[in-house]
Amino acid sequence: MVEAKRRTRGGGGAARRAARSAVSFETARYIERNIPNYDILTDEALEIIETNAETVLAEIGVNFANNPPALDLWRAAGAEIEGERVRIPRGLARKLCETAPASFTQHARNPERNVVIGGKSLVLAPVYGPPFVRDAESGRRYATIEDFRNFVRLGYMSKWLHHSGGTICEPTDIPVNKRHLDMLHAHMTLSDKPFMGSVTEPSRAQDAVDMCEILFGRDFVQENTVMTSLININSPMTFDDVMMGALEVYARNNQACVISPFVVGGAMAPVSVMGTLTQVLAEVQAGIAYSQLVRPGAPVVFGAFVTSIDMNSGAPTFGTAEASQILYGAGQLARRMNLPFRSGGALCGSKLPDAQAAYESGNTLNAALLGGVNFMLHACGWLEGGLVASFEKFVMDADQLGVLHKLAAGVAVDANAQAMDAISEVGPGGHYLGCAHTQANFKEAFWRSDLFDYKPFETWDEEGARDTQTLATNRVAALLDSYRQPALDPDVAAALDAFVAERKASMPDAFV
Amino acid sequence: MVEAKRRTRGGGGAARRAARSAVSFETARYIERNIPNYDILTDEALEIIETNAETVLAEIGVNFANNPPALDLWRAAGAEIEGERVRIPRGLARKLCETAPASFTQHARNPERNVVIGGKSLVLAPVYGPPFVRDAESGRRYATIEDFRNFVRLGYMSKWLHHSGGTICEPTDIPVNKRHLDMLHAHMTLSDKPFMGSVTEPSRAQDAVDMCEILFGRDFVQENTVMTSLININSPMTFDDVMMGALEVYARNNQACVISPFVVGGAMAPVSVMGTLTQVLAEVQAGIAYSQLVRPGAPVVFGAFVTSIDMNSGAPTFGTAEASQILYGAGQLARRMNLPFRSGGALCGSKLPDAQAAYESGNTLNAALLGGVNFMLHACGWLEGGLVASFEKFVMDADQLGVLHKLAAGVAVDANAQAMDAISEVGPGGHYLGCAHTQANFKEAFWRSDLFDYKPFETWDEEGARDTQTLATNRVAALLDSYRQPALDPDVAAALDAFVAERKASMPDAFV
Repeated sequence: MVEAKRRTRGGGGAARRAARSAVSFETARYIERNIPNYDILTDEALEIIETNAETVLAEIGVNFANNPPALDLWRAAGAEIEGERVRIPRGLARKLCETAPASFTQHARNPERNVVIGGKSLVLAPVYGPPFVRDAESGRRYATIEDFRNFVRLGYMSKWLHHSGGTICEPTDIPVNKRHLDMLHAHMTLSDKPFMGSVTEPSRAQDAVDMCEILFGRDFVQENTVMTSLININSPMTFDDVMMGALEVYARNNQACVISPFVVGGAMAPVSVMGTLTQVLAEVQAGIAYSQLVRPGAPVVFGAFVTSIDMNSGAPTFGTAEASQILYGAGQLARRMNLPFRSGGALCGSKLPDAQAAYESGNTLNAALLGGVNFMLHACGWLEGGLVASFEKFVMDADQLGVLHKLAAGVAVDANAQAMDAISEVGPGGHYLGCAHTQANFKEAFWRSDLFDYKPFETWDEEGARDTQTLATNRVAALLDSYRQPALDPDVAAALDAFVAERKASMPDAFV
Repeated sequence: MVEAKRRTRGGGGAARRAARSAVSFETARYIERNIPNYDILTDEALEIIETNAETVLAEIGVNFANNPPALDLWRAAGAEIEGERVRIPRGLARKLCETAPASFTQHARNPERNVVIGGKSLVLAPVYGPPFVRDAESGRRYATIEDFRNFVRLGYMSKWLHHSGGTICEPTDIPVNKRHLDMLHAHMTLSDKPFMGSVTEPSRAQDAVDMCEILFGRDFVQENTVMTSLININSPMTFDDVMMGALEVYARNNQACVISPFVVGGAMAPVSVMGTLTQVLAEVQAGIAYSQLVRPGAPVVFGAFVTSIDMNSGAPTFGTAEASQILYGAGQLARRMNLPFRSGGALCGSKLPDAQAAYESGNTLNAALLGGVNFMLHACGWLEGGLVASFEKFVMDADQLGVLHKLAAGVAVDANAQAMDAISEVGPGGHYLGCAHTQANFKEAFWRSDLFDYKPFETWDEEGARDTQTLATNRVAALLDSYRQPALDPDVAAALDAFVAERKASMPDAFV
């Protein structure tokens, strides 16, 4: 591996010279809610779930597959081990979780892009994982590294997106065992927003740590969190060695993990909200407790990716009532554990960025904001149950994220906001457009879409009667046309290039 | 006018004979929330608004235009009158509002379709007012009475719609002074759900009362509420004589009125949430107080139709953060007055039933559910800022209303819902699809769309890669094809026909 030189953040003179020639784009700060959370469950219901989750952990237990060292850690902590089954005495998992921080800062290479995950914050990151992409011109096709890079560029240009994400799409033209290097390289060089590490092999997680040490400096990485990576639990109640191996690498290096059951309700969890929440809580507690066994104090996020199933077709469904209820309930459970919470996203089952996609996504985005989500993966670009990353939907969703920012800012109550002068000035039958209060406040008063159509009917009709997808196609092109790469210290860039080249040369291509 | 004979509800033997030959359609009962409301404002903020609204009423006042009898009523009640301006001493309007009921039942001619408006209920009614209609085949065009009738038929067939509404679209092919007769006739004969009366002239409101007396029987109408009609306030703070004339007719006849400021924030109210809520509260209090001066105890609804403006184009915008904040705040104010609350709807500015329409509508539908709305006009079919009633969007929105029903039902917490047997049966690494708990519960477990695409990609592609609008076009046709008129006592039907014919013959056509 390449030995990175120690470096102050933001690079030296070369970085400053590069910065002077770069275009700067407006990026909103992560959301800090000034509105209450929505609590759908009573304390009594929450206590039932907590008691039942303890029963699940103590009597049924969870499996840590192919992972004898994990079993050793659990045994030493007081769990009962039988084969790969770990039964955790009542109260133990919850107690182990207490060393996890209530919130943490994930650093970006541009310190202005740092995000706080936890408390009242909401950090928005793009879709994660699709093997396909879709755009209006080409339709649906396998994703490539150039698609991936374009999504990173769009994320960098998106005002309301705070985080560059992880596997925005799978670059299927790159060998499976090497694509993480190209993805990390793209996040590190094409954007200056925070990003996620690889989790598909422990060695790839280590590559991510090593590349971060090049980007941020070794000491900085060991002392600070620079990645928040996604560790899925194989529901029901199975922790596989690949995901746990990645978790172990990240936890040991003080990097953050979202520990997240991936649940299609009715298939991987019971067909009831209470039952699903019980299983989710048991799984998350076991996973977070394990992270704290690996390194007490390692930053983690209580994750809950939960949707329902269409019992007619077996398809996962999104934006449903049950998914929202589970999201709200999981948020309450996370807050009772004083842990950051991950859920939500612009989730949908539709094949196209059409009305179905928008209804379903809108339902989930709204629930995620009010449900107290702190880290929202899939906040834009998700299509077709996560099989597809859509360029048009990326900018459509990303635009809607502005609504969340403004809604979360809450309601100003000062004298200016009370506007009594305006009401008095205008009076019955008057008009506010010209009054002094409107003139003084209109610029900041109302959120406005950068994408949607607000034109008079006749103008809209003359311009081709474009629908949202067509407007989005144009916006994708305009954003990519105006993209300018953020400045990066040339020495760091060269070291990253060298690391990727060296690692790629060190192993044969693998495509499975 | 036609003298209606006194009649028991549901008609006599002829109605029963007709009923036996009719097709019955499933219609969900109105929503009774088993979830909490979302309160965005603090008590302190609410008290500021209430105090400021009293100041507005006492110091600025409101105008009752062209309505000397209204001024007399106000003067007698203790208000200060100056020209058309009514200044209402602090506390008086709120005190007068106290005689309004906290909730009321609006009766339908089919008693199974009765709705309760107030408390924890949510009653869903279609779009109101558009002069245009749109469908995928014909595009945008002026609405006709046949369009109107088709919308009534669609509403009757829509499972999640509780109310037939009022002016679903303007039948522009019928003279302005006669179209209310045809609209009421359609609601009364093509559907058996509750409906709204005309408000465009006091004489037309009286026609609505008279027709209800034919449909329900005179005594029944005087003793029960059979219409909930829409009285818009001309914001800021103007109560015109036409709307007040209709209100007077309805209140005297014990029929319900939604008393509703129609506010595009920034034009008809200040560009701030607190300022807008202050004006809304003052206006609603003045309007409801006036209804109680006309008839103490007359049923009313605290209305708030509020949206924001795009300061670049002047266009009203929908589904925005500010609109949601105002909706939540207005709901809190209504609940503090112990009054039913009207707001929300599937509101959007888009010209097409596309993703923009769905994001905007979804934002408002979600806010309306959690914001405690009791009566939701425009719950389906609204397009292009309310200029257009869209056939496709009608069925798209109407389908989404199912999500609201399931979400509002809340989370079951009993032993079956806790599903501990299922978790134990399945265990780590198992699968829930076949377990006993799933078999016993799957039919009711998850809401599913009757419209959206849940098919595998390949099937969907082979079937033409249809988007939501195309699916909706097909659904509109299927619903209208399978429509069967609900049974109605032939004597009543004949009396309604005769009333409409007689009233139409009594006046020349007017087109303005």
